[in-house]
Amino acid sequence: MKAVRVHAYGRAPSLDEVAEPRVVGPFDVLVEVGAAGLCRTDLHVIEGQWAAIQNPELPYILGHENAGWVREVGSAVHSVTPGDAVIVHPLVTCGLCIPCRVGDDSHCEDAVFPGLNVDGGMADLLLTNARAIVKLAPNLQPVDVAALADAGLTAYHAVRKVQPLLTPGTHVVVIGSGGLGHIAVQALAAMTPATITVVDRSDAALALAGSIGAHHTVSGAEGSDALVREVGEITGGGAHVVLDFVGEHSTPEQGITMVRNRGTYACVGYGGELRIPTIELVAREIEVVGNLVGTYKDLVELMSLTAQGKVALETTVYPLSAVNDAIRDLDSGTLVGRGILVPGS
Amino acid sequence: MKAVRVHAYGRAPSLDEVAEPRVVGPFDVLVEVGAAGLCRTDLHVIEGQWAAIQNPELPYILGHENAGWVREVGSAVHSVTPGDAVIVHPLVTCGLCIPCRVGDDSHCEDAVFPGLNVDGGMADLLLTNARAIVKLAPNLQPVDVAALADAGLTAYHAVRKVQPLLTPGTHVVVIGSGGLGHIAVQALAAMTPATITVVDRSDAALALAGSIGAHHTVSGAEGSDALVREVGEITGGGAHVVLDFVGEHSTPEQGITMVRNRGTYACVGYGGELRIPTIELVAREIEVVGNLVGTYKDLVELMSLTAQGKVALETTVYPLSAVNDAIRDLDSGTLVGRGILVPGS
Amino acid sequence: MKAVRVHAYGRAPSLDEVAEPRVVGPFDVLVEVGAAGLCRTDLHVIEGQWAAIQNPELPYILGHENAGWVREVGSAVHSVTPGDAVIVHPLVTCGLCIPCRVGDDSHCEDAVFPGLNVDGGMADLLLTNARAIVKLAPNLQPVDVAALADAGLTAYHAVRKVQPLLTPGTHVVVIGSGGLGHIAVQALAAMTPATITVVDRSDAALALAGSIGAHHTVSGAEGSDALVREVGEITGGGAHVVLDFVGEHSTPEQGITMVRNRGTYACVGYGGELRIPTIELVAREIEVVGNLVGTYKDLVELMSLTAQGKVALETTVYPLSAVNDAIRDLDSGTLVGRGILVPGS
Amino acid sequence: MKAVRVHAYGRAPSLDEVAEPRVVGPFDVLVEVGAAGLCRTDLHVIEGQWAAIQNPELPYILGHENAGWVREVGSAVHSVTPGDAVIVHPLVTCGLCIPCRVGDDSHCEDAVFPGLNVDGGMADLLLTNARAIVKLAPNLQPVDVAALADAGLTAYHAVRKVQPLLTPGTHVVVIGSGGLGHIAVQALAAMTPATITVVDRSDAALALAGSIGAHHTVSGAEGSDALVREVGEITGGGAHVVLDFVGEHSTPEQGITMVRNRGTYACVGYGGELRIPTIELVAREIEVVGNLVGTYKDLVELMSLTAQGKVALETTVYPLSAVNDAIRDLDSGTLVGRGILVPGS
Repeated sequence: MKAVRVHAYGRAPSLDEVAEPRVVGPFDVLVEVGAAGLCRTDLHVIEGQWAAIQNPELPYILGHENAGWVREVGSAVHSVTPGDAVIVHPLVTCGLCIPCRVGDDSHCEDAVFPGLNVDGGMADLLLTNARAIVKLAPNLQPVDVAALADAGLTAYHAVRKVQPLLTPGTHVVVIGSGGLGHIAVQALAAMTPATITVVDRSDAALALAGSIGAHHTVSGAEGSDALVREVGEITGGGAHVVLDFVGEHSTPEQGITMVRNRGTYACVGYGGELRIPTIELVAREIEVVGNLVGTYKDLVELMSLTAQGKVALETTVYPLSAVNDAIRDLDSGTLVGRGILVPGS
Repeated sequence: MKAVRVHAYGRAPSLDEVAEPRVVGPFDVLVEVGAAGLCRTDLHVIEGQWAAIQNPELPYILGHENAGWVREVGSAVHSVTPGDAVIVHPLVTCGLCIPCRVGDDSHCEDAVFPGLNVDGGMADLLLTNARAIVKLAPNLQPVDVAALADAGLTAYHAVRKVQPLLTPGTHVVVIGSGGLGHIAVQALAAMTPATITVVDRSDAALALAGSIGAHHTVSGAEGSDALVREVGEITGGGAHVVLDFVGEHSTPEQGITMVRNRGTYACVGYGGELRIPTIELVAREIEVVGNLVGTYKDLVELMSLTAQGKVALETTVYPLSAVNDAIRDLDSGTLVGRGILVPGS
Repeated sequence: MKAVRVHAYGRAPSLDEVAEPRVVGPFDVLVEVGAAGLCRTDLHVIEGQWAAIQNPELPYILGHENAGWVREVGSAVHSVTPGDAVIVHPLVTCGLCIPCRVGDDSHCEDAVFPGLNVDGGMADLLLTNARAIVKLAPNLQPVDVAALADAGLTAYHAVRKVQPLLTPGTHVVVIGSGGLGHIAVQALAAMTPATITVVDRSDAALALAGSIGAHHTVSGAEGSDALVREVGEITGGGAHVVLDFVGEHSTPEQGITMVRNRGTYACVGYGGELRIPTIELVAREIEVVGNLVGTYKDLVELMSLTAQGKVALETTVYPLSAVNDAIRDLDSGTLVGRGILVPGS
Repeated sequence: MKAVRVHAYGRAPSLDEVAEPRVVGPFDVLVEVGAAGLCRTDLHVIEGQWAAIQNPELPYILGHENAGWVREVGSAVHSVTPGDAVIVHPLVTCGLCIPCRVGDDSHCEDAVFPGLNVDGGMADLLLTNARAIVKLAPNLQPVDVAALADAGLTAYHAVRKVQPLLTPGTHVVVIGSGGLGHIAVQALAAMTPATITVVDRSDAALALAGSIGAHHTVSGAEGSDALVREVGEITGGGAHVVLDFVGEHSTPEQGITMVRNRGTYACVGYGGELRIPTIELVAREIEVVGNLVGTYKDLVELMSLTAQGKVALETTVYPLSAVNDAIRDLDSGTLVGRGILVPGS
């Protein structure tokens, strides 16, 4: 089959002809890939930033955002059958450790992560297991939802954790309305009655946010003081929740400042540092919440919202063979929405 | 009446003869002070550290940890009657703002704080309101519980917030087992089945902790690496919850390191800074929780535990007139347990 | 002033000229009534059904659903000023008992209930206290919201309690989409992504439900078996939550049957009996939840949804002097929507 | 191997020589049975009461409360190895359905129940799967804990669900302190600071309850009115939570009456009927909660409490070959504590 493989860090991946993966274990599921999302993480993988952390054996196949159709299942799998349209949770989890047993499977103690530490789904076929498979509603197509498998899932997970705090009359601020953030805005609008304020440096991102549920938009291009002051006025003294999809440069500091007393700063983006005097943490009694990927149940819920038409992705579709065009467009900032690679096209 | 007043920052307070406060408003309660706790905050007040924040008009009466007996009540007060033994919540709250309406009264938008911004309770009498009053069970004496009104309340509040996380098989680490920390240890033992590990630099504090509920004690006097490694071994890879009653020097960093993935670092002490890369916050999906004083309901619950004999304070009693002796002993580190000032003695 | 008073049970109330109530206590608030909702409870009061329970001294003024403008406030009230447009929570609560202290004020241990046990608001003026007052957003008028003070509040409270259960992909069934139920449907649509199915005997009620958020409507006029079967098909084996606004005849039994394993049957209506074998309760592990009125915070949240345009009431307006016409129309079933009495008109 | 099999309902089971079960599937675990608890459910099975519900193919092996040592594991099992001492969760669950995915595995949509619908563990060997296996701490022996696998698990699960309600100062009433109830009393004492009141008809059960954590005991042998009145006095107007381990005769009615407004009646026992007017459900805003078995995580937590010495069972041990003696003793009421069958003895 065709597959996009990393041979050496710092070099562009190549489209190779490789052997097809095969169902071996009883819970294995072999998926005919309908679409593979291209994620900024893929760029970081190629650069070698994840080499030490995930340590895959090179060459290996990229791709951790996949949807497609079941081709073959292991002997113990009754939850799906060949031909079913599915989206694939990015982790292959064990089902036996305590995190798996309590619904916290994104912290499985024995998981593999296709596309990061074993062969992923930028290929004709992807091997995963039954615990990663979510069946799609009849009105959903793999090409439309693939990028929700990781980017969307991560945004949804963060929203889901703060949703109980967002009762009528509350304010939520979303910092960064890009690939993840614009999913978060839609999920917030679908699941909470909170007033949503979006901060971004891009006017196009703000315009999109306003059209999908944001009640207020604020340009992050203005100075930090003006930004924080404007958000303070909109929220009447501070947001109940800030969701930070940037997590670097000045956003952690700004985000903490935007939160009202007893409020929550939820961080999804990374790259920077959070610095906060303990007296401020204590005197304002605020909470700081880290967020990582999402659980299987999160993905099921996100697909439910998507099937209801409440969440949608903007995408640009490329054939799998054009992977390096897509990478170039993403890297240069000219890729509009999420890049989606389609095998066999 | 006799009262301990601050006349100028940086100077020792003096025991003055002042006019008695009087019941004016319908919800006022005048309390005959049975005991007033001496708190490290009082030292900071005298030094002037709180001058700008609380801005009381000098001279004013110190004292924010009080218990005693009701002497007189306003026309609308039916919840207590003269003669009732009571403990006094440190805040006088409004009962009308949203925080007050949802049980989050320690964040009342219209509170006064006797002893910090108006006259406090190091005196024969203290004026407060009915919303601050908790009746004592028959087996409790004001002199035994006064210091629970603030120090104990703060510790209890922090424990109460993390208690839902501490199911059987979990680990909690308490950093700093002093005036607040040793109340936390007792509350943890009374309300959770968690394994409790206490870290402190003082052998005496560790010995006390071991006798009131700690399952493991670790000396903070050893180097930071050894400390973190030892806690890691005890907790089998990290605590589910760390309660930091120090909040300065290296404890925020240590505390974050001691937490396992998806764990919670709850901070009560202050003076230092929390610095954490957003990638760590995200990759380990941890939470950071600030804690401030406690609510009225927290104080009611703490008094319930105290009446059951599950929480007790070590104290050293001084007559009110010896306030400067008590301050000197606290400042020099020779005061054992909590200093309690008793008026009229 | 003019006031609608009950002189004897079983007799129509009369419009009397009575003395104006006056502000006496420091937290009193005197409200110029802009609108008073007419509720089926008023009919039951007139019939004498509540006589023993609430035991008001006759004659007394009806009316427990009010909105208007503040005319005068007691000395301690800073939260509103004369001229403010407000809605009035039906209970006058104490602010001191434990339920009041934890946000559960609808269970205040020392409340009075104007219109049920003391003079109510079918009059030019209503005396209440500051704890009952919610300021209206500028875009809300008393005549439009008055009936939300009790009927709407009760519906909202029930929705609010089950809202955490209604994650994406879940099903909620609303039995009875009348005065309360149709508010519940709107609140569910505004605050949850659940699929909403409404059951009612009235085609008009079902048509309205469909236009304000219900995804499916089922006629309760068909036999019980067909009804339960149809709901079972829509919900794919049972609802996660059933909200029963009828609570009599066959609805408790039907409601329990419509719930899936581990689901919740929430009851708001009354008049009937719930009978359930303990083996069914246990084997299906279901929950049954009673609901009564709502808290102050619930009313604040409901007004927030209303100001956002997410909740609206159908009303028919009568002058206060036509109260007995309104009562006759309500009793005979010809009153469309909620009857609203407007004083001074 | 030796096994206790039901050949026909209404007839005593017999000790048969049968073929050993074998590991077939990759997640299978074959357990050398160290102890099998005898449960009243086994008597009901023999009588045929469960025949229609569980529908096992006769003859089949009884036994759903087991602990022992792992003999052999399937190819995919890494969580335990042969020789490990383990307790066996009564359900063999799929790990793929939504209940399994969110930690609600006792409602697995594809479970089998050894001892009820397939061969159980009153035998030398029991075949189960890795998802049912909890490793024992070194200080626990199979013979001491076997009966916690179902009876203890059910009691613990019910306690765990109400534990968040049992803050300091609250009251919990346990109706029926037999095999399940006396575990509940111990779990309540270990995990909550609530005041525990136990109601039972047996003086011996009350004496035991008093020695393992109950603060008050009340004889159920007195008339219902006296009983309810006495509980009302102890609880100061009603319990926050009632746990009913009887669930028949007058206990559901009594339990509802014993609950205070906004309280919870949690039912574990069955056989009777709960009847409650909807007006009472609504006016008192109470909750009714059914409880069934427990989850895998519940069993892990219960084993943690047991290893800490906070939960212990009274047992009477019989050799497996004396199963019919044990059944006779249980049926006649002469069996003290829980009957435990030990194979190979």
